[in-house]
Amino acid sequence: MPLSTCPIPLQRYPHVLLAHGGGGRLMHQLIEEMFIATFQPDAAWQHDAANLDSPSDRLAFTTDSYVVTPLFFPGGDIGSLAIHGTVNDLAMAGARPLYLSLSFILEEGLPMEVLWRVVQSIQAAAKQSHVRIVTGDTKVVDRGKGDGLFINTAGIGIREHDSLIGPSAVQPGDTILLSGDLGRHGIAILSAREGLAFETAIKSDSMPLVAPVLDLLQHVPVHCLRDLTRGGLASALNEIAMSANLSIQLEASKIAVSAEVQGACELIGLDPLYVANEGRFVAIIPASATATALDCLQRYDPAAQVIGLVTETQATRVILQSPLGSQRMLDLLSGEQLPRIC
Amino acid sequence: MPLSTCPIPLQRYPHVLLAHGGGGRLMHQLIEEMFIATFQPDAAWQHDAANLDSPSDRLAFTTDSYVVTPLFFPGGDIGSLAIHGTVNDLAMAGARPLYLSLSFILEEGLPMEVLWRVVQSIQAAAKQSHVRIVTGDTKVVDRGKGDGLFINTAGIGIREHDSLIGPSAVQPGDTILLSGDLGRHGIAILSAREGLAFETAIKSDSMPLVAPVLDLLQHVPVHCLRDLTRGGLASALNEIAMSANLSIQLEASKIAVSAEVQGACELIGLDPLYVANEGRFVAIIPASATATALDCLQRYDPAAQVIGLVTETQATRVILQSPLGSQRMLDLLSGEQLPRIC
Repeated sequence: MPLSTCPIPLQRYPHVLLAHGGGGRLMHQLIEEMFIATFQPDAAWQHDAANLDSPSDRLAFTTDSYVVTPLFFPGGDIGSLAIHGTVNDLAMAGARPLYLSLSFILEEGLPMEVLWRVVQSIQAAAKQSHVRIVTGDTKVVDRGKGDGLFINTAGIGIREHDSLIGPSAVQPGDTILLSGDLGRHGIAILSAREGLAFETAIKSDSMPLVAPVLDLLQHVPVHCLRDLTRGGLASALNEIAMSANLSIQLEASKIAVSAEVQGACELIGLDPLYVANEGRFVAIIPASATATALDCLQRYDPAAQVIGLVTETQATRVILQSPLGSQRMLDLLSGEQLPRIC
Repeated sequence: MPLSTCPIPLQRYPHVLLAHGGGGRLMHQLIEEMFIATFQPDAAWQHDAANLDSPSDRLAFTTDSYVVTPLFFPGGDIGSLAIHGTVNDLAMAGARPLYLSLSFILEEGLPMEVLWRVVQSIQAAAKQSHVRIVTGDTKVVDRGKGDGLFINTAGIGIREHDSLIGPSAVQPGDTILLSGDLGRHGIAILSAREGLAFETAIKSDSMPLVAPVLDLLQHVPVHCLRDLTRGGLASALNEIAMSANLSIQLEASKIAVSAEVQGACELIGLDPLYVANEGRFVAIIPASATATALDCLQRYDPAAQVIGLVTETQATRVILQSPLGSQRMLDLLSGEQLPRIC
């Protein structure tokens, strides 16, 4: 992305100062000249809260803080991630994202130009995701008490459907679809963090999932949606299986993992089924709608596939069936393979 | 507040681990046994976003991150502050707060019991403020990359009135009311931080302002509301004067500052007009409604007073009139006197 000139004079303020969060002149300059000028959130931003007129009284509401390190990685940065992650959470509730709040926790000494790059990335991602940033907050912590910058976004969306979407709607016999290949985000972060040079550059899959989800909801009576962030596919399906008190059978051969990600995972000793994604989701749907749903998802990503089905068993389990006929139980890990990937 | 037993076994997990933010078993245990069990946000919390049915399509939306240090101070802590600050922002927009999101950024090594104390304080403050915590997020950053814990709350409220409330509604001749005495929060933080022992313990004024504001809105056609957080009274009035392109005349003798706060400010060299409050606000109203408004505010705090009026001048200014007749211009400071007070 070509950089516009930073609206804060960099020669005078090359770094974020504690005073940029102090409520005085410098904070006002930062908010007005960088944030308001970029996000153009109407006059609302300047007051304590934004006034919004919702087109519906059926809302979805979500929040996420972003602490990813490093701040910039192949295929994205903390700014675009903070938009994609939150609009995707709304999409997973079957809601159309409308409004986002944006809150920064900056570390004293952060290069002002880094903040400006992130702000521009946020604006580009918000535009692409058709959401408006309507209110915000800025805090600055002393040097050594943060890590460059953390972001929180909260989001309001409206539910445009009547169905209950969630684990409690999942039925035995339901089909499980995966929207694309796995593991790109986690591996992209790890390679940027460790300076690992894989043969092929692996870019994060971070992207808004609003369009495929809203399209799917128009054509299919979806039972459950879940994006595959921290803990990856295996953790998400474990959560759903536990909540629904059902089991899940997966076919390993149907789960797309690119050769580059597979190679990197083998090198590092990671299981791609547990690696985080920021642009992938599973949809659990009635078996009768499988063809329609697959057709819909493959229009957005040809790698979308039917990867398994929901079954009724005595114990709640997620089981992976290998091409050679062996079975492996996918359990919930204690922690996660990679900290701070989002 | 008497502490209930921490639902996470402290002998096994005396400190927050990176794995508590990793998407696996430990994170689920923390979320389910500590957060969901305490906040009881319906089933919604476990999914990506909470489904809400709003009683109105006229919303107010706000966000704030809280980085106050120390985490506990006389009269409050980061948890109660994170509720009061956000419900107060909604109240200042003339809205009734309904739903809050809650996001933690925890530093690896934070004592689990500290988190538990904060969680209980959050729940008590939310109950007192009549808001529900409906969705949340937890991130953990490595030791030395945070400062114990940071909190973000975002809030949704509904506007129950038809008037435009904000600086653009302010008119020359309007009366300015202050809801109580100034400076307690900033001085309480400072004394806790520096270990200063003043003769009398000064407690933070942190509290929800929802009740007095909604009461005032029922009886008076309010033009503008502003809580007096970072930068204090002087900064808030400067912002309003600049936005409204008008001037403000204050009577120093009408502005309540307790003897304890006055003494502490003199000792440290601070101006109470710039010190942060977390439970004080100004209301700007038509002069004709002054008696009604004062009567209303004094029912909540006898220290509420009419402190000045809005005037039309060539230059936008906030002017303080001393009892002896001298005038002093209150300007916007560059930074703030005290960093990280909220």
